[in-house]
Amino acid sequence: MNDTAQKITVEKAQTSKIDQVDFDNLSFGSVFTDHMLVCDYKNGAWETPKIIPYQPITLEPSSKIFHYGQSIFEGMKAYKDAAGDTWLFRPFDNHKRFNISAKRMSIPEIPEEYFIEGLKTLLRLEKDWIPQSEGSSLYIRPFMFASGKGFHASPADEYKFMICLAPSGAYFSGKVKVLIEQTYSRSANGGVGYAKAGGNYAGQFYPTQLAVKKGYNQVIWTDDNTHEYIEEAGAMNIFVRIKDTLITGPTSDRILDGITRKSIIEIAKDEGIPVEVRKITVTEVVDAAKNGSLKEMFGAGTAAVVSPIAAFGYNDTDYDLPELPNSYARRMKERIIDIQYNKAEDIFGWRHKV
Amino acid sequence: MNDTAQKITVEKAQTSKIDQVDFDNLSFGSVFTDHMLVCDYKNGAWETPKIIPYQPITLEPSSKIFHYGQSIFEGMKAYKDAAGDTWLFRPFDNHKRFNISAKRMSIPEIPEEYFIEGLKTLLRLEKDWIPQSEGSSLYIRPFMFASGKGFHASPADEYKFMICLAPSGAYFSGKVKVLIEQTYSRSANGGVGYAKAGGNYAGQFYPTQLAVKKGYNQVIWTDDNTHEYIEEAGAMNIFVRIKDTLITGPTSDRILDGITRKSIIEIAKDEGIPVEVRKITVTEVVDAAKNGSLKEMFGAGTAAVVSPIAAFGYNDTDYDLPELPNSYARRMKERIIDIQYNKAEDIFGWRHKV
Ligand SMILES: Cc1ncc(COP(=O)(O)O)c(C=O)c1O
Ligand SMILES: Cc1ncc(COP(=O)(O)O)c(C=O)c1O
Repeated sequence: MNDTAQKITVEKAQTSKIDQVDFDNLSFGSVFTDHMLVCDYKNGAWETPKIIPYQPITLEPSSKIFHYGQSIFEGMKAYKDAAGDTWLFRPFDNHKRFNISAKRMSIPEIPEEYFIEGLKTLLRLEKDWIPQSEGSSLYIRPFMFASGKGFHASPADEYKFMICLAPSGAYFSGKVKVLIEQTYSRSANGGVGYAKAGGNYAGQFYPTQLAVKKGYNQVIWTDDNTHEYIEEAGAMNIFVRIKDTLITGPTSDRILDGITRKSIIEIAKDEGIPVEVRKITVTEVVDAAKNGSLKEMFGAGTAAVVSPIAAFGYNDTDYDLPELPNSYARRMKERIIDIQYNKAEDIFGWRHKV
Repeated sequence: MNDTAQKITVEKAQTSKIDQVDFDNLSFGSVFTDHMLVCDYKNGAWETPKIIPYQPITLEPSSKIFHYGQSIFEGMKAYKDAAGDTWLFRPFDNHKRFNISAKRMSIPEIPEEYFIEGLKTLLRLEKDWIPQSEGSSLYIRPFMFASGKGFHASPADEYKFMICLAPSGAYFSGKVKVLIEQTYSRSANGGVGYAKAGGNYAGQFYPTQLAVKKGYNQVIWTDDNTHEYIEEAGAMNIFVRIKDTLITGPTSDRILDGITRKSIIEIAKDEGIPVEVRKITVTEVVDAAKNGSLKEMFGAGTAAVVSPIAAFGYNDTDYDLPELPNSYARRMKERIIDIQYNKAEDIFGWRHKV
């Protein structure tokens, strides 16, 4: 235990809700553990984080979160191995990205030890909440928002950093059918797409609902200018396999620098899979689908790890992807999960013990 | 009083804070009246609005407003005339725009009578809070956000529509110096820039802070693709006067359809001022500044009505604008204010009695 961990105060809940939870039938992110972490930014400084019983938040109606969308979040998971030990996956990268998001949204950055030690203290307290059944995990939601007041459109003077935990089942069930977006977009050049800013996600809802009405599960985002470059799959990074090459777009100010994405790039290299990080055009994907060289497409993100795509729609035509016996999607997913759950050696140094 | 107005319940505050307010020294949007309107969306329907004492809001930590930026707002004002009557300016346009924003953010639309009758009932109750001194007014903030719970990135199942009132002084004091933005942008083609979505505003803070560090007050937003078209001035629409022609960009999915902007277009037409609604390039503005034909630039929006620009920066050069004795900015501002405060005939039918 370091200095920060020692300073974190813990107020325990009087009773636990854990007995009311059906761990075999968890949905995603709808049940929450008994405690949460709260850390306030006031008078130009972060106060010491505290862990308190899970409870509602009370805010002034003029708090800037309600008006100007000054909010960011992260998505992580805690994994329990067979011996009952708890692990995190590349948590320092989440902390770094959190602060990158914070900076873009004019939110004060949170010190590493508040984030990491705060989370570990919370996880130790809630270790019984970490599901052990296949596919389930404890979803971790660090988030930060403007609690300061006033209707002037300028950064707030007070913020709240919080971490909540939600034991969760799998995010997607089964293969998804996606629509390559030709009208809407999620981010601008010079915009906030690379940040996990709240508003980026609400902006996706409407186009996604339109796609769902047409029979798709998700939208594949393209660049806002030409709609000719494939950028992300819903709230996941996207991978395309043409023949035996795995391709993903380069990160930019429009694309989130996903931790799953970069892990997959490293694993693929380690396994001798040819990987290309370069712009992907819609045309080449459609052509590859037509001539049979398009083998796979999948989304990559913390929640689902890998989400295989069964078919995509473009210009009112649907293109089915083949069912491969030994897909890259499955290989990548298994390799990552084995590292996350401490079932395999971690040659990359990604696993972090709580 | 119509049916809806009759159904709205009013719970009065036990004491008023009005005596503690210095109405001669109001800042913008930092003092709030005694009451607010709240209307909940639950089980697929809006409940009847209620007026209650101004008080904090209590929400679950997993409420989607904290995570996915599902929120919109409006900005309006109430004006008191010499006879003590209260007026709104084109309030039905605010309601329409609110629902346009709602739709884009997958938020259920609010019925017109809840918005208009709710606001009028609130204003009648708070009429003593409407400042009468020059430049001051009662700022009105309708807003709506996702109160529903869950960490799944999808639209919430519950929402709150609220209206708060803030007696306010002038938004800007004096002429502003602006920077034409060449790196950052506020909106994408196919994005949410035309909606008053919370996240659009937080996204502006960081680039604006960078501009402020360089000695400017505001950013002039350009298109995200080429940075060659002038789109908005901070959170205002932009007007440029070259020789005697008043020019403003066409609205698009990147630009908010401002009520002040469209009122100015109509007034200018009425006054015989040549008006052009067309794309404005940075090059033509810089050229016009160099050859002396650039007479004025100003922002237009509810808060400031018209905000004259004294100078703009571009490519590390500052360009000063002349001081004109009878500027369009001042003419437009006076004409609008006279209509708003019931000092002049309203040939357009914009004024609406509370
Ligand atoms: C827009 C977007 N792209 C990609 C990802 C994937 O990032 P990660 O692998 O770090 O979860 C996320 C987050 O999950 C995201 O929100
Ligand atoms: C981005 C933006 N542009 C322009 C305006 C001006 O609109 P209005 O004149 O309706 O206030 C606003 C709101 O005030 C705005 O937020």
